[in-house]
Amino acid sequence: MDLKRINSLIREIPDFPKEGILFKDIFPLFQDPIAVEMVITHIVNYINTHIDKKVDVIVGLDARGFLFGPIVAMRLGAAFAPVRKAGKLPGATIQVKYEKEYGHDIFEMQEDSIKPGQNVVVIDDLIATGGSAKGAQELIEKMHGNVLSFIFMIELEFLKGKDVLSAPVYSMIKS
Amino acid sequence: MDLKRINSLIREIPDFPKEGILFKDIFPLFQDPIAVEMVITHIVNYINTHIDKKVDVIVGLDARGFLFGPIVAMRLGAAFAPVRKAGKLPGATIQVKYEKEYGHDIFEMQEDSIKPGQNVVVIDDLIATGGSAKGAQELIEKMHGNVLSFIFMIELEFLKGKDVLSAPVYSMIKS
Repeated sequence: MDLKRINSLIREIPDFPKEGILFKDIFPLFQDPIAVEMVITHIVNYINTHIDKKVDVIVGLDARGFLFGPIVAMRLGAAFAPVRKAGKLPGATIQVKYEKEYGHDIFEMQEDSIKPGQNVVVIDDLIATGGSAKGAQELIEKMHGNVLSFIFMIELEFLKGKDVLSAPVYSMIKS
Repeated sequence: MDLKRINSLIREIPDFPKEGILFKDIFPLFQDPIAVEMVITHIVNYINTHIDKKVDVIVGLDARGFLFGPIVAMRLGAAFAPVRKAGKLPGATIQVKYEKEYGHDIFEMQEDSIKPGQNVVVIDDLIATGGSAKGAQELIEKMHGNVLSFIFMIELEFLKGKDVLSAPVYSMIKS
């Protein structure tokens, strides 16, 4: 696939959200529906060729994981389940503390969103230190789901986020 | 379309996020990929049969508008542009103050996300008082975009949110 086209639509914004961070802005990609289609097809194709189990649930992280997750889930005939910060999801939830660059925060999932034994793929736009992906994995495993794989559009390799995750990681673009 | 199936997948949660509010939880719908497909097809069909202009941009509100917006945009061959709370979007943004149930908040869009004269449809999961949809309309009009229509999955009719919007409103489910 023409990853150059995808790459050219990711805009780098210096010093956002704070000084010293080069933010990867994926929204320019969403101005180009063909490019979005290419990303979705690429991810679905990766899953179909590299994961030999039926995927039951795609888990997406608030908010940018919501942009891709439901489309991929629909294509696979899988459920989509969200991870959000504490207080955003109604009904009974389970929680996990996860590490951020400075300090901690709380992630939640609805407690009926993964059934025991279900196979799960976690999707997000970017992996940096891996803290939030690790939090998602912990939530899924609390519900006795199996994390088959993590899929990211962009991986910041120098932060070695992969190392904190105990399931295979696939990133479309390494940076 | 079988709106009963869609309706049955919307869960009502009393007293969330605060006492006295009966929250409409759309996440159970996302456990059923066929139902998601039905919602998307319904929305795309509505646009194709009721809007006689080419839609250039779908605008979706953070976070639940992100679940539907990009899929509908892709189907229409349109761009997708996000509205988020202040501080979440990188790069140059434009801002608007919008009314919430109690007090105000700030919404932003990236300033290059709508070009002058573009035709826009705003999508969100639910319209209550219409404050956030109105904020989105103001942002789009600041960039000289034309709001053709608002589309919601659920409308809380008793709150008359429609009355604060100056473009047609379509809601799949009235409640």
